[in-house]
Amino acid sequence: MTAAGRSDADEDADRWREECGVYAIYGHPDAAAHAILGLHALQHRGQEAAGIVSFDGAHFNTYRATGLVGDSFSDPRVVEGLPGHAAIGHNRYATTGGSVLRNVQPFFGDFAFGGLAIAHNGNLTNALGLRRRLVEAGCLFQSTSDTEVLVHLIARSGQRSIVERLIDALHQVEGAYSLVGVYDDGIIGARDPLGVRPLVLGRLGDALILASETCALDIIGAELVRDVLPGEVILIDKAGLHSLFPFVRTARRFCIFEYVYFARPDSLVEGRGVYDVRKEIGRELAREAPAAADVVVPVPDSGVPAAIGYAQEAGLPFELGIIRNHYVGRTFIEPTDNIRHLGVRLKHNANRSTLVGKSVVLVDDSIVRGTTSTKIVNMVRAAGATAIHMRIASPPTTNSCYYGVDTPERSKLLAAQHTLEEMARLIGVDSLAFLSIDGLYRAVGEARREAGQPQYCDACFTGDYPTRLADADDGGRDRQLTFLQHER
Amino acid sequence: MTAAGRSDADEDADRWREECGVYAIYGHPDAAAHAILGLHALQHRGQEAAGIVSFDGAHFNTYRATGLVGDSFSDPRVVEGLPGHAAIGHNRYATTGGSVLRNVQPFFGDFAFGGLAIAHNGNLTNALGLRRRLVEAGCLFQSTSDTEVLVHLIARSGQRSIVERLIDALHQVEGAYSLVGVYDDGIIGARDPLGVRPLVLGRLGDALILASETCALDIIGAELVRDVLPGEVILIDKAGLHSLFPFVRTARRFCIFEYVYFARPDSLVEGRGVYDVRKEIGRELAREAPAAADVVVPVPDSGVPAAIGYAQEAGLPFELGIIRNHYVGRTFIEPTDNIRHLGVRLKHNANRSTLVGKSVVLVDDSIVRGTTSTKIVNMVRAAGATAIHMRIASPPTTNSCYYGVDTPERSKLLAAQHTLEEMARLIGVDSLAFLSIDGLYRAVGEARREAGQPQYCDACFTGDYPTRLADADDGGRDRQLTFLQHER
Amino acid sequence: MTAAGRSDADEDADRWREECGVYAIYGHPDAAAHAILGLHALQHRGQEAAGIVSFDGAHFNTYRATGLVGDSFSDPRVVEGLPGHAAIGHNRYATTGGSVLRNVQPFFGDFAFGGLAIAHNGNLTNALGLRRRLVEAGCLFQSTSDTEVLVHLIARSGQRSIVERLIDALHQVEGAYSLVGVYDDGIIGARDPLGVRPLVLGRLGDALILASETCALDIIGAELVRDVLPGEVILIDKAGLHSLFPFVRTARRFCIFEYVYFARPDSLVEGRGVYDVRKEIGRELAREAPAAADVVVPVPDSGVPAAIGYAQEAGLPFELGIIRNHYVGRTFIEPTDNIRHLGVRLKHNANRSTLVGKSVVLVDDSIVRGTTSTKIVNMVRAAGATAIHMRIASPPTTNSCYYGVDTPERSKLLAAQHTLEEMARLIGVDSLAFLSIDGLYRAVGEARREAGQPQYCDACFTGDYPTRLADADDGGRDRQLTFLQHER
Amino acid sequence: MTAAGRSDADEDADRWREECGVYAIYGHPDAAAHAILGLHALQHRGQEAAGIVSFDGAHFNTYRATGLVGDSFSDPRVVEGLPGHAAIGHNRYATTGGSVLRNVQPFFGDFAFGGLAIAHNGNLTNALGLRRRLVEAGCLFQSTSDTEVLVHLIARSGQRSIVERLIDALHQVEGAYSLVGVYDDGIIGARDPLGVRPLVLGRLGDALILASETCALDIIGAELVRDVLPGEVILIDKAGLHSLFPFVRTARRFCIFEYVYFARPDSLVEGRGVYDVRKEIGRELAREAPAAADVVVPVPDSGVPAAIGYAQEAGLPFELGIIRNHYVGRTFIEPTDNIRHLGVRLKHNANRSTLVGKSVVLVDDSIVRGTTSTKIVNMVRAAGATAIHMRIASPPTTNSCYYGVDTPERSKLLAAQHTLEEMARLIGVDSLAFLSIDGLYRAVGEARREAGQPQYCDACFTGDYPTRLADADDGGRDRQLTFLQHER
Repeated sequence: MTAAGRSDADEDADRWREECGVYAIYGHPDAAAHAILGLHALQHRGQEAAGIVSFDGAHFNTYRATGLVGDSFSDPRVVEGLPGHAAIGHNRYATTGGSVLRNVQPFFGDFAFGGLAIAHNGNLTNALGLRRRLVEAGCLFQSTSDTEVLVHLIARSGQRSIVERLIDALHQVEGAYSLVGVYDDGIIGARDPLGVRPLVLGRLGDALILASETCALDIIGAELVRDVLPGEVILIDKAGLHSLFPFVRTARRFCIFEYVYFARPDSLVEGRGVYDVRKEIGRELAREAPAAADVVVPVPDSGVPAAIGYAQEAGLPFELGIIRNHYVGRTFIEPTDNIRHLGVRLKHNANRSTLVGKSVVLVDDSIVRGTTSTKIVNMVRAAGATAIHMRIASPPTTNSCYYGVDTPERSKLLAAQHTLEEMARLIGVDSLAFLSIDGLYRAVGEARREAGQPQYCDACFTGDYPTRLADADDGGRDRQLTFLQHER
Repeated sequence: MTAAGRSDADEDADRWREECGVYAIYGHPDAAAHAILGLHALQHRGQEAAGIVSFDGAHFNTYRATGLVGDSFSDPRVVEGLPGHAAIGHNRYATTGGSVLRNVQPFFGDFAFGGLAIAHNGNLTNALGLRRRLVEAGCLFQSTSDTEVLVHLIARSGQRSIVERLIDALHQVEGAYSLVGVYDDGIIGARDPLGVRPLVLGRLGDALILASETCALDIIGAELVRDVLPGEVILIDKAGLHSLFPFVRTARRFCIFEYVYFARPDSLVEGRGVYDVRKEIGRELAREAPAAADVVVPVPDSGVPAAIGYAQEAGLPFELGIIRNHYVGRTFIEPTDNIRHLGVRLKHNANRSTLVGKSVVLVDDSIVRGTTSTKIVNMVRAAGATAIHMRIASPPTTNSCYYGVDTPERSKLLAAQHTLEEMARLIGVDSLAFLSIDGLYRAVGEARREAGQPQYCDACFTGDYPTRLADADDGGRDRQLTFLQHER
Repeated sequence: MTAAGRSDADEDADRWREECGVYAIYGHPDAAAHAILGLHALQHRGQEAAGIVSFDGAHFNTYRATGLVGDSFSDPRVVEGLPGHAAIGHNRYATTGGSVLRNVQPFFGDFAFGGLAIAHNGNLTNALGLRRRLVEAGCLFQSTSDTEVLVHLIARSGQRSIVERLIDALHQVEGAYSLVGVYDDGIIGARDPLGVRPLVLGRLGDALILASETCALDIIGAELVRDVLPGEVILIDKAGLHSLFPFVRTARRFCIFEYVYFARPDSLVEGRGVYDVRKEIGRELAREAPAAADVVVPVPDSGVPAAIGYAQEAGLPFELGIIRNHYVGRTFIEPTDNIRHLGVRLKHNANRSTLVGKSVVLVDDSIVRGTTSTKIVNMVRAAGATAIHMRIASPPTTNSCYYGVDTPERSKLLAAQHTLEEMARLIGVDSLAFLSIDGLYRAVGEARREAGQPQYCDACFTGDYPTRLADADDGGRDRQLTFLQHER
Repeated sequence: MTAAGRSDADEDADRWREECGVYAIYGHPDAAAHAILGLHALQHRGQEAAGIVSFDGAHFNTYRATGLVGDSFSDPRVVEGLPGHAAIGHNRYATTGGSVLRNVQPFFGDFAFGGLAIAHNGNLTNALGLRRRLVEAGCLFQSTSDTEVLVHLIARSGQRSIVERLIDALHQVEGAYSLVGVYDDGIIGARDPLGVRPLVLGRLGDALILASETCALDIIGAELVRDVLPGEVILIDKAGLHSLFPFVRTARRFCIFEYVYFARPDSLVEGRGVYDVRKEIGRELAREAPAAADVVVPVPDSGVPAAIGYAQEAGLPFELGIIRNHYVGRTFIEPTDNIRHLGVRLKHNANRSTLVGKSVVLVDDSIVRGTTSTKIVNMVRAAGATAIHMRIASPPTTNSCYYGVDTPERSKLLAAQHTLEEMARLIGVDSLAFLSIDGLYRAVGEARREAGQPQYCDACFTGDYPTRLADADDGGRDRQLTFLQHER
């Protein structure tokens, strides 16, 4: 489809994109059906492809497909093809190139000691170096995914049991991961020692569930047991739940951007309601950066909770001054040049009567490249707003993420290249303000950011990365497949 | 796909569904591309299938497909296959049976005098009787659509020009229609004498546009010229725009439910912002039915503007106590019985921290069968709300619509079968209130409803139908195709 | 797929192509399954698309698909979707343009008096004129098929019963047709007064069958009752079989080319084995045009029976000197120019060891454009044949067919433009001979062709057309659809 | 498609099926287009799936698809996606289970030293044992193919160059293989030391070609250079062709069944025309087993050349008494039980007029299970034959093949379980005769079979296997995938 473009690409590329959601369930006769529902609830963490592996006591059954879970897995034959009491699932964002499905998790291995399928959310920062060593030792790779590196490490581990092999492998990798796995005896969950990515434990009757967020428990009325802890490895089998802590304990560094944008507002993260945190961010923002305005308008949907908080704190009316068209699919026709120059509003439209003649506080969660902000500001201005005060519900994003989020290079990050004044001018607003880093920490309940030992991973705002970045320091971030595979 | 069900069917079936959106453009080299964008903006008026016909000076080119416009028409070969300076398009809701595409508009005829394709939003209330007469006269029908009746009436008219034939045909039909057509010389627009369904005229440079709502103009930056008037027939050709009023003038009766639910909030209808009307409805509702509560929570997305209005009028905080999952596609896996009993929350989830320990005003636009309301109330209650005061942003819907809206039979309408108290008990709320009919008229700027000559069509609330209902009085509302056609 | 070509197009375009095969069955619970088998047996009469309509007592069910019957109808859901004790089916050759399925038979009408679906093999020679009149009278056409003309004539007939209406319609049409139909009471068969196209009546237990050829009876072990007679209209319903002869009797003129090429060799046509006739043709040819050669080689598959007959009569060995690749599908990749110049042998290859150093009699059924003959002769020569004596198992084809066969215009027919000597030189053979017209008549058992009253339709050889050619005399043979329809 | 069956399965399962055809080309700008044509010419060696890998100087490009080459690879985008001057291709028969494409060759590896893709025709008789050892050493397998074993052996070889690694790997495997490969420098061909499977070397201008049979050279007019020799490893790169003989020389044992059935009649195998050998087989059979009959009739298509030879030797007329329907696709609708009892003739039909009242010699190439023979004999008898003398153009097949042919277990082989008299009675013929093993050797030009050192592999007739059968002796012949993968 080389001629087809995505005219909404600008807007999509102008968000940070979480790479994955994971789900695992053990002890339910409809394990795969639950995994499908769980992945549907986690769809916001990855919309391009999904995969599920179930174990039926004899075989591992797997189905992987591009597209939304509700579309790809809605054929009843898919569920029938995934029998068993245990299953894991995974959502992911776009893979590049023509070989989409080869990189879709879960990955699985048929080992001497049995089978194992794993999937993770996060990114291994030394995967390329490990891969190079494995290929030299005669390993055959089928994908470019860092998950496949883990599978090979497990296959070649000298340890005996699957758990020992997994832990052996995890000791060799660096980076961030919230991992789930299914093997012949049960399911596995693991979180990296820093606990960068989220993972929760839930219960539904006798079945136990692991999921990226609590909304994947809510969809079926399962109860939240607790967060899986940083550095914890959990095994769930017939005998119940086993918890291991095989790593040297370190201070936790959960990703603070999960609160800002990634997590669903109805999820509880570390016991805190995400919606509440976002409203509190809006309140902090109103205190830090007030504006003499008539109305507070969010950029929907991600700016809405902060805008409500801002409006409440500022005592200003909250209005839906921008309407979002939710029917925008994954792709849309590339308009002709002629049409493109007109500036098509596929995703957002100004709600004119709310904006005309008003001084507007416009609230968005973050600014990445600034292209969407510019487009929306133009639209609001054209609808008759007399002044636009843009308020951003996070500090300036000045650094790339290496822990499982698809971020542009630094050179493409607006805040990494420009001063506040330059940004305001480029975007075309009357005033522009970001939340301070301490304001963000206050919104999540801390007194302030502890500079020596930050309580969260905030590298995208501060450049303070909590791990080595072996591959990045080593050169490329990505590796092209030698084999470009097309199938049908 | 007989085994596949739709577990969100309950929720979807519990809204009234507009049957169509229409679009036409003349005088632009990318006419079909514009029609695609226009249909995308009108996607809320019909999501199951769409069709476009363009005229390239020699041939009419047509493409019809099920699914969202952004998916079905995003292949560049589709646009390439629809050349020409004139095009019309149509969105529609589900057709029944296996022969989806045969009923997808536009319908076209290859007449002795040339070709014509037409599409309309609305419903002809005497179509079955007309069809019976036409079949007896030897006409062959390919679909069950009332639009095809119009095409046959045009084909058999004794008049000479295409406009005269169309007007001849329109004089024979009863009901509601906002119609667009494309023929060898230009495009046509027509609105029934009562003006039940909306239709606006816009301009983009030299091109003229007809569309169901202004949001289809906004998407490409076209300007609104005016509403097409009730009973007006518009021709747009090389010579420009021609306006005819071939019907006896009658008082207009625009559908008031367009304000309540159908139209997009950012559209201007009769010059009024839909969002503003809905907020005003919320204010009226707060005045008519106040509640001692802690928080105002909308059922998203349709209840949001009224909830904002209610909150502002009542001086209560507005909170997103329910989060909607927008990734729900058209179909979703039928959960097993086991799972179904758990009550899957595919579309809505409670935002627990906002609800726990609160007395909640829950605002929704309307109640149809009551099944969704019951489900949502249960969910809000389970999340810890101490009291639920449900407020409905319209009067009780007690009668079916025969003017192009897919409504259940009266016997399925909750408000047609139960008193207010019964409804409150069935749904499980602490209190329940609907907006009064006069309150609704006040929200659209009238002093009150004029009983002798109502300013709007409000038959769904009052049973006061503005036309004869020939087919309904005659028996069946629907006619099964004798031929069930499968193609691939 | 505009870029895709058919490198075998030359070869395919260099055969005359029968347009259709028809099948009907009444009184069997698996009527549609039988129709599928029957169409499979008739696949040689039309390979591009097929359609079936069954009647289940309440509804007509229809399925139409492009491709081979064995592929398109092999999904069990297709048969399940075609219930009933009565069914008709139709195979056809390529339709042009993008709107394949609109022209796929059977065609059906939903009449005032009930439903009827019909399909035919043949061609109505006054269809365009009739269509023009019907359109002027207000009929809407959905296709360019002449069958749809018949459906409209039936719809508008003043007669009461379906049979009377059909006969009324048939009295208005000219040309050749072997027609089957299914209506609410039973099935119908009809053959034009000249009996140009074949149609046989068979029996399987209590069920009665109509089919183009006996091979469609053999596939399921049904017995042949008799040929349907020229001008006969047969009704089969609960009461049994009714035979009508509504036309003025005329002398029969069966298509003699059915013996030469169209019919399957194992079919009985007019009680004669087609294989036997073809062998007899070969014997006649050996007598008329002997050759001093070492070996007789057929162009497979159509030249095989005549070559066997020739070899037996001439006392020469019969050898498979050319091998055919039966895996050639409907389309094949367009080779690059580079490859095309090499002359790809997709369909035929020389069997070198059989040809080298030999003087070869090469037997083919007919010559149309001569392109395939030239290619094959080159190949045989390159394989080492010392002399090639081409013998054609029919007279020179000098005229187009207007009775349901897709033939090139006269200007493209080699024999219409060149003398025998020129043809021999163009094709590159050492000698070339065609069967005489009287030789052909002798092979089918006649003493000679009766010039004043020919016993067969042999217009392609003689230009002696047995009917008026109203449309052809009137100008165009084809009419472009005004509406180009794409669906999916 | 669980409900769908294959009513032609009986017939197909009643042939021995070659597992593969291979093709490789180096030095042509349209390498992949040539590979497609070559695979089309080799389609008879494998019809279920095909794969091609090309190397464009930077990347290996691969496309794999189920279905016929002419269908699967006819999309021009497929060829465009396979650029490069070097390419290999592979046809194969059915893979079992739902994971068809994972087992489709070529297989490829991304090694430390570069990339390599390989495909082979044959079967490694110690693959399961090798696989077990490799998995224990930490190798991850993606398929059950023995080809993947080779790829892992190459990946783990201690040798440096790709050729040394390949030879190292080949020294570890046992069985039969004709192998092609493409790597960053060129292409590779190899034949096992016994030369069981065929492989020829051809030339087209400057390009060199490796292919299973000469018909893959003929299709494009390439010339035959010579057969690749048993035990020869050929490298073709920029520097030209390099020939290595890394194995201890042993006597050759080419598969004699290639002459009987597998190879295309127009191919030259070991310099001998396959058609000529088959005719000679027929002559031997006529001498060994004459019959007093009226006519010789082949079971088409495989019995035709032997029947011609038999008829010529016996001085009896050769007639096409059975007609084959070549439109039978890969699947066909499962008839209802009702229909099944009637005995559907999807593939063959009796040519009644040729058989009625005749004493018939019926010639087929071999008998496997006997089900097809029984069905055909019944059909010929029902058509009126007075006597049937069945003559089989090979000795009784009494043993399974382990060298790349899909044969039933011994217990299913009719000749392994019954005497000649029993077989004649079971099949229902008046007399039955097989060619003698010495007669078969005479037909290929030998004086007789040398019992101590047979000139061919004839294990299927004699049980005299030319290699160890490590896996078979070790238990299972097949290994189920632990992971059942579904993709789309």
